[in-house]
Amino acid sequence: MSAIEDKFAKLGCDNAPGQEGRQKKVDLPLIGDKIDGVPVDFSHGDVDAHEPTPGSLELFSEGYAIGGHQAYTEYRGAGALREDLARKLAAFTGAPVSADDGIILTPGTQGALFLAMGAVIGRGDKVAIVEPDYFANRKLVEFFDGELYPIHMDYMKGEKEGKAGLDLAELEQAFRDGVTLFEFSNPNNPTGAIYSREEILEISRLAEKYGATVIVDELYSRQIFDNREYTHLRAQNIVNPDNLLTIIGPSKTESLSGFRLGVAFGSPKLITRMEKLQAIVSLRCAGYCQYVFRNWFEEPEGWLDERVKAHQAIRDDLLALFRSVPGITVRPTEGGSYIFPHVEGLKVSIGDFVKILRTQANVTVTPGTEFGPQFTEHFRLNFSQDPKKAHDAIVRTLEIIQRYR
Amino acid sequence: MSAIEDKFAKLGCDNAPGQEGRQKKVDLPLIGDKIDGVPVDFSHGDVDAHEPTPGSLELFSEGYAIGGHQAYTEYRGAGALREDLARKLAAFTGAPVSADDGIILTPGTQGALFLAMGAVIGRGDKVAIVEPDYFANRKLVEFFDGELYPIHMDYMKGEKEGKAGLDLAELEQAFRDGVTLFEFSNPNNPTGAIYSREEILEISRLAEKYGATVIVDELYSRQIFDNREYTHLRAQNIVNPDNLLTIIGPSKTESLSGFRLGVAFGSPKLITRMEKLQAIVSLRCAGYCQYVFRNWFEEPEGWLDERVKAHQAIRDDLLALFRSVPGITVRPTEGGSYIFPHVEGLKVSIGDFVKILRTQANVTVTPGTEFGPQFTEHFRLNFSQDPKKAHDAIVRTLEIIQRYR
Repeated sequence: MSAIEDKFAKLGCDNAPGQEGRQKKVDLPLIGDKIDGVPVDFSHGDVDAHEPTPGSLELFSEGYAIGGHQAYTEYRGAGALREDLARKLAAFTGAPVSADDGIILTPGTQGALFLAMGAVIGRGDKVAIVEPDYFANRKLVEFFDGELYPIHMDYMKGEKEGKAGLDLAELEQAFRDGVTLFEFSNPNNPTGAIYSREEILEISRLAEKYGATVIVDELYSRQIFDNREYTHLRAQNIVNPDNLLTIIGPSKTESLSGFRLGVAFGSPKLITRMEKLQAIVSLRCAGYCQYVFRNWFEEPEGWLDERVKAHQAIRDDLLALFRSVPGITVRPTEGGSYIFPHVEGLKVSIGDFVKILRTQANVTVTPGTEFGPQFTEHFRLNFSQDPKKAHDAIVRTLEIIQRYR
Repeated sequence: MSAIEDKFAKLGCDNAPGQEGRQKKVDLPLIGDKIDGVPVDFSHGDVDAHEPTPGSLELFSEGYAIGGHQAYTEYRGAGALREDLARKLAAFTGAPVSADDGIILTPGTQGALFLAMGAVIGRGDKVAIVEPDYFANRKLVEFFDGELYPIHMDYMKGEKEGKAGLDLAELEQAFRDGVTLFEFSNPNNPTGAIYSREEILEISRLAEKYGATVIVDELYSRQIFDNREYTHLRAQNIVNPDNLLTIIGPSKTESLSGFRLGVAFGSPKLITRMEKLQAIVSLRCAGYCQYVFRNWFEEPEGWLDERVKAHQAIRDDLLALFRSVPGITVRPTEGGSYIFPHVEGLKVSIGDFVKILRTQANVTVTPGTEFGPQFTEHFRLNFSQDPKKAHDAIVRTLEIIQRYR
């Protein structure tokens, strides 16, 4: 197998959210009949149930009406939009953002993550990521020929101790071993755990002590439940700003995924590299779409509160359902729209379970192994759904779980 | 310098079209006063002068109205749109396209090119590209750690012989030396030369003989002047279809660049890899934007003819201007919107000339060295502009040329 064949053999996406339709049909060990019910796809949020920020389509049309000036922006995004966003993101994260050289608009938060990792990881560079964490992190390290250092997060123990549960000793050992980049999501994807202030401070001190770069994916940082404290790493003023990138976007809480909008901000050195990479990857975040950034952080009065409340209610309902069944453990989501149940005693693999669930109950979830090879008894669901449909789908899910135990 | 610093030191974009604003201010050897005139940016087309295909914004709105189903398509694009496009592209290029596994929608043609090159080039792989050709080709080979084999195109000699002028002996030697990929644009960017049927046949035979992969960038293949013959390589049925990708998009002739739409089609093996890569690069071509593909190849009666005619008229006007000055040689554009004048006797470097021209005459062009290191007396202009403004800008350009000779 050639190097490139090998690379792509490792890089799978059939189990990625939304890609289930491309899986080859396999014979599954089916028990019992199908359970009728409205299909629910928990692999991503339902933007029909939780609609895009009001005025988004109108802003797109305004961008289109501007014409060529908005179609052909600088690769890092239109200057006026960068100024507006730099101001808002500085206020949100509690540290300055340079509109001129400290921010880049990207095609979605995935685009920001790709450019950021590509800007930092050279062949053979040692990169620490968290397990569990967003499935693309591992794939990106492998694609850029980095060497993977998984840092474990005992999120169930962490819950009891009021923190995410990252193994900070393991992180320091990784830095000692030569790790030059630490990338993590906060709130954590898939568990919804939020890093405590102490964890953020210690991550910062360690990174700074060893001169490492830090990329923080704060995609879900506007959707925090129970008025919990959220600590922006960049506001702590510990990591050298030239070694720090923060990533965020309006695809989740704001339901703007269909526009593909994301932002990375922080280190001018790294953002310069990201723009060079963007120039050969896809030139720019789609020009007219960029204009939709204008109402971000300027939603109608009360809109964000309502959205967070609605999600907190769905979370509470689904958590209660999961907790009603022995042998299922869940950490309550503190931020974001994910639940990551641990199901003991399944007699089928998690991969087969996910397929069976879709076949027999019209419910789509993402297998835990996408978030770390050890999560063979977990699945993830995005509960940004219609509340009633989600409730019924989890009732069906629990019935299927009982069948296969 | 670390490997990654070295990689990004080589990967520049300050001279890329539209990025001029980010260049550091330098002292230029200015002669004479500024020449007043409406600014013209020939680094890309003017979509205000040549507007997007009628109905594009309406289609975007329709896509938005569909909601979640259109926001979250498969990474390779929505199934129904792929079916529609596969049919149209098969008819246009004269060979079958599989909607299921032979096509991927991408964020612009640049996105298609990045994914295609990333799907084929492994570290150390030998890759042949043309000089002159689109500036990103070289950068992509370097980014993916390939080894560059430039194949020369004597386009001025080619003009006299009714062909593009590719050195086919050099191409065969490259294949003999182990080149596994040949990538080229047709019509050629920046010269506007179209490859003759004989050249396309010979490229095909050589690639097939040596088992190489071919990527053909046909971005401008709908904008052919003087009813000239255009030969789609994939219709020749010579190269193994599993080793062949064709790239196209509606950003140029159709002025849809602000939506970022592109397509790659052909080899299922390579498209599977491209989708895996898309999953970590930016997930998908923006969902609502994808819907704008619907009116592509279904423009109103006569619309495309009018657009081609309008560009042919601008070409004729600007060519006449350039030819009125001794020591400037130009091959007439056969397809696409580029002119690539060769200017003899300039006393400043082409890089300085381009900056002087912008400073003194409000005219932006792209230095020839972006298209190959040897094009030190060339610049490229995209003449998809308002005819009058473009005419006046070239008159100013010629005056500046005379000043610096």
